[in-house]
Amino acid sequence: MRRSNVMKCRRCSAKAEVKLRAHNTAFCRACFVLFFGRQVDRCILKNRMFSHGDRVLVAVSGGKDSLALWHALVSHGYQTTGLHLNLGIGDYSTQSREKTEAFARVHGLPLIVLDLRTLNEDISIPTVAAFTNRRPCAACGRIKRHCFDTAALEHGFTVIATGHNLDDEAARLLGNVLHWQREHLAKQRPVLDPTHPKFVTKVRPLYLVSEYETAAYAFFSGIDYVVDECPHGAGATQLVYKKTLNRLEEEMPGTKHGFVKDFQRAAQPVFAAAESPPAGECSVCGMPSYGSACSFCTLVAEVRAKRERARATS
Amino acid sequence: MRRSNVMKCRRCSAKAEVKLRAHNTAFCRACFVLFFGRQVDRCILKNRMFSHGDRVLVAVSGGKDSLALWHALVSHGYQTTGLHLNLGIGDYSTQSREKTEAFARVHGLPLIVLDLRTLNEDISIPTVAAFTNRRPCAACGRIKRHCFDTAALEHGFTVIATGHNLDDEAARLLGNVLHWQREHLAKQRPVLDPTHPKFVTKVRPLYLVSEYETAAYAFFSGIDYVVDECPHGAGATQLVYKKTLNRLEEEMPGTKHGFVKDFQRAAQPVFAAAESPPAGECSVCGMPSYGSACSFCTLVAEVRAKRERARATS
Repeated sequence: MRRSNVMKCRRCSAKAEVKLRAHNTAFCRACFVLFFGRQVDRCILKNRMFSHGDRVLVAVSGGKDSLALWHALVSHGYQTTGLHLNLGIGDYSTQSREKTEAFARVHGLPLIVLDLRTLNEDISIPTVAAFTNRRPCAACGRIKRHCFDTAALEHGFTVIATGHNLDDEAARLLGNVLHWQREHLAKQRPVLDPTHPKFVTKVRPLYLVSEYETAAYAFFSGIDYVVDECPHGAGATQLVYKKTLNRLEEEMPGTKHGFVKDFQRAAQPVFAAAESPPAGECSVCGMPSYGSACSFCTLVAEVRAKRERARATS
Repeated sequence: MRRSNVMKCRRCSAKAEVKLRAHNTAFCRACFVLFFGRQVDRCILKNRMFSHGDRVLVAVSGGKDSLALWHALVSHGYQTTGLHLNLGIGDYSTQSREKTEAFARVHGLPLIVLDLRTLNEDISIPTVAAFTNRRPCAACGRIKRHCFDTAALEHGFTVIATGHNLDDEAARLLGNVLHWQREHLAKQRPVLDPTHPKFVTKVRPLYLVSEYETAAYAFFSGIDYVVDECPHGAGATQLVYKKTLNRLEEEMPGTKHGFVKDFQRAAQPVFAAAESPPAGECSVCGMPSYGSACSFCTLVAEVRAKRERARATS
């Protein structure tokens, strides 16, 4: 009798190349690519993220997650345009732009590139970090959100899609839960409907897909992505949470998936009730804002003031 | 100039013997015992757990937590009676009873001892485990709750106090949060007011005190407690959660304390709103019940039926 320990693909029984412990299954290369695409499309449908009539702006960093997302959306016939922000972080940003542009070129896809060094004035991440006491990752998040929002409004997109994966979502959720940050929990869901006429729907179609899966999908699909992580790192705290969850996942496969999915089902609605939309508009840029100036324009003003002071004293 | 790396007691500047990283402080032996007692008393006052007029039934296993709790309550002049359940788990239970009885004798305290082997019929934990497919820890929790509730009712106590510490609470919270068990989150708070006239208030005065602190307090107070853990263990899952939280605590001191405390402040009230009290009374024992028979009597009936079937076939 012939015995084999080789794992077989769930769909076609060929030799499996991707083993998904959380789902207790395995796939060969071709079937995994199919499975991944269907998983993403099912997530879009089930959560009513958008339809084929929508104009989707995909935030593309040049990393595996965002390029895998863009690739999967295009494969399923959605109307997409990429938006790449050059963050001005040395070689890392140069490489990121090049990989993103190459992907768009090869697949014949429209791409908008914005450069933080020349947006109005230089607000690249190293500049912001040098002129303020803010953590680069917090400032970067704020700038990105503003640029995505304004680009969507300006170009008439109906949806902004980002490539946050299950590992990102689970780590963010763990951080929010360890400190019970209600205002953050109120906003942590895969579809954020616009809370102001100048906002568009924001979606995270990969929120239940693990980092391992997006990496495998990108690799099998021949996507050439930036492998290096941002030199500013994802923030030491975020890495601790990811490590913690990876250890739990080792002992209890499916932990991350259950944690994020059950949150959306059983607890997020409770917190969402406390969500407070921005009441007014920014006096500087006109975008929705909680105060008289939005958090982006406040940051820009801070950088400008510090830069001018530095010039005056030099 | 004389330099010293010896940590000093926050209160009296003597050489510190207990270092509390979560509180960023340290104490000598005598001052720590004082600090611990005050911490527990402040918790009782702040959460309005009970007053000096209450008759408090302290659930005492014979381990460090419950004996430390009993000791601290007595030191602060509360009216207490111990309740010890002999679980019938071999040497572990024999030792536990002996240590508990010795503590009560030395301190001249009233103690009620119940024996699960002879309560009505034998429902000791090994018997329940042998005759049912239930996990011993789940059955044990159910039996304990019933025995505490009925003893409080029978003897006219107004409060039941248990020795659950911060590590227990944090592990339980992590488990409830990873699976978003709303009905469990609804009940996880340090004071449970009675939801039925036959119930009394249940409190956990040590819920913000770490396991390390209760061990230090017990040791410094000369308490002779059972060091061995229950041979059934706290459940593999609970241990994984404790290990996870200990690692997080290593990297971010104060994580457990913030997790449990902020939950009570910011999130528990949201979940508590969904709490559903037992609607009726058990047709067998008369205690409050969700169904026609309470979960304890259901368990007893199951053990009885299996035991009789085993006798009939032997």
